[in-house]
Amino acid sequence: MTPEEFRTAGHELIDWIADLRSSIDERPVLAQVQPGEIRSGFPTGPPTELSDLSSLLERLDTKVVPGITQVQHPMHYGWFPSNASLSSVLGDIASSGIGSLGISWESSPALTEVEEVMCDWLRQLVGLSDQWRGSINDTASTACLVAMLVARERASDLAQNTGGLQAVTSPLAVYTSPQAHSSVAKAALLAGFGWDNITMVDVDPVTYAMRADALADAMAADVAAGKTPAAVVAAVGTTGTTAMDPVAAIVEAAAQHNAFVHVDAAMAGSAMLLPEIRHLWDGVEGADSVSWNPHKWMGTILDCSLHYVRDVELLERVMSTNPSYLQSQADEQVTQYRNWGIPLGRRFRALKLWFHLELDGIEAIQERLRRDLANAAWLGEQIEAADDWEVCAPVALQTVCVRHRPDGLSGEALDEHTLGWARSINDSGAAYLTPSMLDGEWMVRISVGVEATERHHVEQLWDLMQRAVG
Amino acid sequence: MTPEEFRTAGHELIDWIADLRSSIDERPVLAQVQPGEIRSGFPTGPPTELSDLSSLLERLDTKVVPGITQVQHPMHYGWFPSNASLSSVLGDIASSGIGSLGISWESSPALTEVEEVMCDWLRQLVGLSDQWRGSINDTASTACLVAMLVARERASDLAQNTGGLQAVTSPLAVYTSPQAHSSVAKAALLAGFGWDNITMVDVDPVTYAMRADALADAMAADVAAGKTPAAVVAAVGTTGTTAMDPVAAIVEAAAQHNAFVHVDAAMAGSAMLLPEIRHLWDGVEGADSVSWNPHKWMGTILDCSLHYVRDVELLERVMSTNPSYLQSQADEQVTQYRNWGIPLGRRFRALKLWFHLELDGIEAIQERLRRDLANAAWLGEQIEAADDWEVCAPVALQTVCVRHRPDGLSGEALDEHTLGWARSINDSGAAYLTPSMLDGEWMVRISVGVEATERHHVEQLWDLMQRAVG
Repeated sequence: MTPEEFRTAGHELIDWIADLRSSIDERPVLAQVQPGEIRSGFPTGPPTELSDLSSLLERLDTKVVPGITQVQHPMHYGWFPSNASLSSVLGDIASSGIGSLGISWESSPALTEVEEVMCDWLRQLVGLSDQWRGSINDTASTACLVAMLVARERASDLAQNTGGLQAVTSPLAVYTSPQAHSSVAKAALLAGFGWDNITMVDVDPVTYAMRADALADAMAADVAAGKTPAAVVAAVGTTGTTAMDPVAAIVEAAAQHNAFVHVDAAMAGSAMLLPEIRHLWDGVEGADSVSWNPHKWMGTILDCSLHYVRDVELLERVMSTNPSYLQSQADEQVTQYRNWGIPLGRRFRALKLWFHLELDGIEAIQERLRRDLANAAWLGEQIEAADDWEVCAPVALQTVCVRHRPDGLSGEALDEHTLGWARSINDSGAAYLTPSMLDGEWMVRISVGVEATERHHVEQLWDLMQRAVG
Repeated sequence: MTPEEFRTAGHELIDWIADLRSSIDERPVLAQVQPGEIRSGFPTGPPTELSDLSSLLERLDTKVVPGITQVQHPMHYGWFPSNASLSSVLGDIASSGIGSLGISWESSPALTEVEEVMCDWLRQLVGLSDQWRGSINDTASTACLVAMLVARERASDLAQNTGGLQAVTSPLAVYTSPQAHSSVAKAALLAGFGWDNITMVDVDPVTYAMRADALADAMAADVAAGKTPAAVVAAVGTTGTTAMDPVAAIVEAAAQHNAFVHVDAAMAGSAMLLPEIRHLWDGVEGADSVSWNPHKWMGTILDCSLHYVRDVELLERVMSTNPSYLQSQADEQVTQYRNWGIPLGRRFRALKLWFHLELDGIEAIQERLRRDLANAAWLGEQIEAADDWEVCAPVALQTVCVRHRPDGLSGEALDEHTLGWARSINDSGAAYLTPSMLDGEWMVRISVGVEATERHHVEQLWDLMQRAVG
């Protein structure tokens, strides 16, 4: 395709996107398709004839879009806000158009250095000190795996350079909360620690935050059993209830054993753009790494997960690779991001952060986050005040966890009721909520924070919920 | 940003991209900037005032583009072709505009099912049997790490469910070629095997391909020493010279020890779109996993790396995570790609493959690959026929490895000469080539295959080379 053909097709595509985004609130939130339905709309083999863009966009409309759950919809309250602000979409488009390759500084100096600048701007915006240096990963799952690998190598004196983890004699142990994201246990397993060496530390029964005293006890017991505490993952904003693990106390407990502390603030990191919220991660300066995702609540389109570390040298010793064909004269003076993570090749992701910050501005983003906090608080109050409804966990940020418990319903009957009313809303396409387990019972998570969600949408949701249980 | 503001800005951006792509051959190939130069063009802190797109595009032109090494330039012969075909760029833009979220089938059924369809189309196009199922990763480095993790767990009876790799008593061993990509050793190290358990198997001195007999010997010696052969990584197209490891013989040797075989065809996989080339990976059906990157020579914009496995159940047992909030009624009937790799969240990458195949067509892609093979062969012939020039390795595909050795120059003097003439071309901005080590001496890799590179560009390169050594 020539640049001129691209120009014509690109204009058509931009109009298609603008039209789609304008019409999102007329669409169902949850895709109304059956398993296999989208797949069966495609031929079983590759095309033998050429298409033009118009015909492709027509098929995109009829064969693909019906299969997309509209997470940009103002009535989407599922999982977490996965905002793709249109300003950041422009940055993503610029990145695609430029078509650069990030495998070394030399392969695209701008890709490397704009990433450094954006990571530093975001560091300042969430109030981290200048002791931290950042990079962009695809997701917080990947950052957590990198943290586990670095922790493993630190605790084993870089065993990868000799016999590897399989030569370690005192088993290395990892600690996290049962409320932490599933990717934490997954990362610890992939790093080779094994289930037997992962402790799910008790949480407080009211706040669902990790108990630092229980962490200290677990580590002491492991040491007595001949194990070596290697890493603790603190969740700043757990997945289920957005509980805030006490970072300062965790850092202190971990320090007794020189264990690595990784702070997983994937969702709640966006909240740290608000100075009045930052007390919730007090102690973060004592951690070893922190990750958070602008691609969630902040709204820089996926994938854009920030990973900050204090000890870059350690990170590079674990993750580096330096074959001759990637060496350059500039090596001593530049950042080689390939030595900071798993993939060698990287996209120019920093552009979407740059466009987002320049075109929307941090003040507007902060205002939106405050709006969402107020909307969640409002919804929590309505639920608390209503008969038979309960808020199951503190509303620390923008997630409201709720059960409707008529006539003291409990056990299986309550679970059936909970899943039933959530499903009736979800299946209608009018809104989307995520059922989740808490204390062995199903509840419903309402994650407020889609860019388009205003107060009247939350009011509309509360109406839907009351009608759904009626 | 509203959809209407996006529409206006989007049109402006499309024109900017079309203009940039039209003017690429007027730009230097290698970015002509010093370390820190791009960074210093940015303010040290985030913006306090709003910009509009025009002002941002002006800064993109003046502050960013000069720092981009133009890998879409017809005179780019460095590293590998990193083609970003404009048809696939359109698919990437559609993906950004749609702004969907891939964390489960339910979060975007179309994202999952179109990925299944595209992986299957590409499977057919490279002639793999229907025993393989694929997914899209960011890079082949990530796929290789996943392969090492799966191999580790297979060889240890899923030790991650108990004491992990650190509880394994017979050390697990990995085998690859010293010519394999640096990401292979990195993946084995990150998986925890340790340097002491990685064998770099001897290669043939002429073809640079792994010697299957040496592999068999190395595995037997390890077994005698109490180790367990766990994995072999065969390079189909090594990084240095595009050497082809003998997959059939490697599979046979590995089978003696039930070792997992991963085929890394990151670069050369695109060549398998040509039926006449497929004999180069004969035996691939006996491997356990294969990865290759449409985002290289085939030209679907980065990131788009395909990863095929035969035993999906094993892959899912190693990589799965299934928390309550991600469970859905459809779980039994659908593919949950989160259980196939490291990240939980994924972009809708399949769209760029779909757009690329529909708008360009496989025939045009095949024709271009054949053009590049012929251009590389032509260049190899010119070099062979010229005084003092030598082709250092067989030209298996589109990579030509070359030295200019006047008056029997050798050792340090030759290295200095080699790096000197390559640098003079690179620094001029007229073309870009990658110096690399082979047999302990520097040589220059010429990787033909940029979408825009026609025969006259290769002729021009050969002129430049002759003048550079003169």
